[in-house]
Amino acid sequence: MAKRAETKPPKGTRDFLPDDLRRRRFVTGIIREVYERHGFEPLETPSFERLETLLGKYGEEGDQLVFKILHRGQPLVTGIREAADHLLAGHVVVGRSGETAPGAERLLSDLGLRYDLTVPLARVYADQQGRLPPVFRRYQIQPVWRADNPGKGRFREFFQCDVDVVGAAGPAVEAEVVGAVAECLDRLGFTDCEIRYNHRALLRAFIEVSGIPEEKEPEAIVALDKLDKIGRDGVEAELQERGVGADAAARLFALVLEQPDLERIEAALGDHPLGKAACAELRRVSALAGQTPARDKLRLSPTLARGLGYYTGAIFEIAHPDLSGSLGGGGRYDGLIGMFSGKDVPACGFSLGLERILVVMEQRGMFPDLPRAAEVLVTYATEAREAEAVRLAYRLRGEGLRVELYPKPDKPGKLKKQTLERAIRALVSLGPDPAAPPMLWRSDRPEEPPVPVPDPLRPALLSSLS
Amino acid sequence: MAKRAETKPPKGTRDFLPDDLRRRRFVTGIIREVYERHGFEPLETPSFERLETLLGKYGEEGDQLVFKILHRGQPLVTGIREAADHLLAGHVVVGRSGETAPGAERLLSDLGLRYDLTVPLARVYADQQGRLPPVFRRYQIQPVWRADNPGKGRFREFFQCDVDVVGAAGPAVEAEVVGAVAECLDRLGFTDCEIRYNHRALLRAFIEVSGIPEEKEPEAIVALDKLDKIGRDGVEAELQERGVGADAAARLFALVLEQPDLERIEAALGDHPLGKAACAELRRVSALAGQTPARDKLRLSPTLARGLGYYTGAIFEIAHPDLSGSLGGGGRYDGLIGMFSGKDVPACGFSLGLERILVVMEQRGMFPDLPRAAEVLVTYATEAREAEAVRLAYRLRGEGLRVELYPKPDKPGKLKKQTLERAIRALVSLGPDPAAPPMLWRSDRPEEPPVPVPDPLRPALLSSLS
Repeated sequence: MAKRAETKPPKGTRDFLPDDLRRRRFVTGIIREVYERHGFEPLETPSFERLETLLGKYGEEGDQLVFKILHRGQPLVTGIREAADHLLAGHVVVGRSGETAPGAERLLSDLGLRYDLTVPLARVYADQQGRLPPVFRRYQIQPVWRADNPGKGRFREFFQCDVDVVGAAGPAVEAEVVGAVAECLDRLGFTDCEIRYNHRALLRAFIEVSGIPEEKEPEAIVALDKLDKIGRDGVEAELQERGVGADAAARLFALVLEQPDLERIEAALGDHPLGKAACAELRRVSALAGQTPARDKLRLSPTLARGLGYYTGAIFEIAHPDLSGSLGGGGRYDGLIGMFSGKDVPACGFSLGLERILVVMEQRGMFPDLPRAAEVLVTYATEAREAEAVRLAYRLRGEGLRVELYPKPDKPGKLKKQTLERAIRALVSLGPDPAAPPMLWRSDRPEEPPVPVPDPLRPALLSSLS
Repeated sequence: MAKRAETKPPKGTRDFLPDDLRRRRFVTGIIREVYERHGFEPLETPSFERLETLLGKYGEEGDQLVFKILHRGQPLVTGIREAADHLLAGHVVVGRSGETAPGAERLLSDLGLRYDLTVPLARVYADQQGRLPPVFRRYQIQPVWRADNPGKGRFREFFQCDVDVVGAAGPAVEAEVVGAVAECLDRLGFTDCEIRYNHRALLRAFIEVSGIPEEKEPEAIVALDKLDKIGRDGVEAELQERGVGADAAARLFALVLEQPDLERIEAALGDHPLGKAACAELRRVSALAGQTPARDKLRLSPTLARGLGYYTGAIFEIAHPDLSGSLGGGGRYDGLIGMFSGKDVPACGFSLGLERILVVMEQRGMFPDLPRAAEVLVTYATEAREAEAVRLAYRLRGEGLRVELYPKPDKPGKLKKQTLERAIRALVSLGPDPAAPPMLWRSDRPEEPPVPVPDPLRPALLSSLS
């Protein structure tokens, strides 16, 4: 058969076939149930946002990964006066004199695909504040899009499962989101996850106390965040490259690597007020989260940085031995909503990455047996029995069975084979003799001859139905 | 509070707050259950497709409504050699010499947002044919996007709930999809829907037998499709405008308006082979669909045309007295998959429009009481009892209750008010006295004083829990 068109999904995206979806829904169903039991309410936001909503929130690299949507219903050519001669020359011109390419992009596009679920939440909260409870707990399970280079477990369209609490600053918020996420991991069967935590202000304190100049702070943190991947030597080399002296680097390592706990870190930071406050906050967060299902998973990780620009306080990341990336992450972002409303509102959340969870669960065979679509396949040998077959299918559906009507006559052998291959429990056939009753053949007892279909059928099948 | 940024969702899109989502999920939950009971399997496809996948399938107007995504990770400027002098002059140039603006759009974009769920199904089927059952029944409930002008009940992002059967040509397929959709309507409580049906080939026969020239067929069908909205006089005027003579128009009306049933239509068409075959097919479809939950809803509608370009056989549309548009529609499209695979595969489906269903259900108050997120609000009067409150919340969650921990101390009166306003069943409070037990106050018995929280709590609340 000659293919006439490309039929693969676009780069970095996937088609989810029935078996894929059954596994995905098994996972999202559990996450949703746990989030709801924690009192989180559902929210969904549009797939695209104004570019001004998205840009400037995720850091420079993030901005570049936003998928942008072309203006609709407007001619592409703007600035006709300046462009006239070029048009005459047969060129297509967009942008105005003096515009650079990124500027031209803004002329071409004013919408972008959702990059995460946190920025849309901040926009919605700023918009709906009066209609929402003073402390708003929401969960959101939706796809996001990033124009990243796809790789193993990294896609251009992928799903996040977020919980956030907006409107409260206390450590009980951190405990609630971390507890909810930890219970999801438990329920899904993850036994060897670690929830690492740190504090953005603690990172700043490390930098300052090490004597690294303030303007080098972002680069130093990016380097430090790679410790797990490139080791101490790698980080040292990167710091040197970025102009951080060996002495300062050594002091930094002494702070983040050689202090076993918060008490020792606090002592090492001396009289640094930002650092002291961050330690006190983390101590409360850790004590409260210790009362939740996160209790055995928490571990202080002074090198943890989290990439996104908007975090301001405690930050979290889930590590799993099978993954180099994380299963999810989160933290406190007390400044983001103020970027929309003009008034800061405290907020904190956590995001589970669905695709990473699926990768580990598939590798480790963590899925139970999931029910297939049809339990019964109703077939007919001749067109004369078609109407009877339709009625029979509805009678069985009326019993609560999932029933597929095979919509054309086919050979009994082929239909049996299909029933077996597709793990359908029962094949119900109306044979060529119009007076013969419908016959039942069970795929779990393939050697038994067909018997007349009992009425009702369900009890007879019950033992083999999940 | 001074707003610093636009916080409304983009034009034609909506944020779905918790109450919205509970109603939406109530509807999609029923549709999904009915589709699954009919043996349809879930499929989901990426939010964007290659433009070449989308364009040329929906008709010219449809093509223009596809949202296009800017190329990623490439400089916008192409054809540097030709463009160099313009770049030097400070212009931004896209496109190559001789490109026109629509061509430039193709240079700027190679992806578009999903416009419906049928074309992606056709692409997936062509791609996965070997891995799918020979007759593939799938359902798909996902958003689609159209760059249309938004209006009442018309959005740029909206949800479709599709069922399709691919790989079989018989009328049992039409009966299955129409039956599934009709059962959805029944289960949702719609009592006064009409499922109108017609046949694309019958429309062609009407045109030919009326003596309308073949090249005027598409326009004549578009005019005829408006009969419900603009009446016979309106259609006559439009036909005249489009150069269809009064005699031909009169013959057309005689065929589509004055024949009460298929038998009379067939007689009026005389010896027209296409028309005869279409009538025979519709007779079989109608007889079989009459064995399904669609039985009392079906009505032949010889003027029904359906806009989309890909239909080839029977077509359907659901009319409701409260709506000028339809609740959904569908039909047979035997040529679409061949556009991807190079080999025609018969297919037929139906799409329910979620937003239209919601509009009617809200207007008519067709929703039951839907459960809210939290059943219990756990609060504490002092930070000293915070850890105790976290433990208590988890104890109650362990009973299967949906529990929200209010993550900061607040005044008892405010917390009671919130419990009532948010229809939370029970307020559980840890008071300022560290030795006092947690107290229970029920919003369904607001006049009763708080009592110590029983252990377990669930049985005590059961009577008021949904």
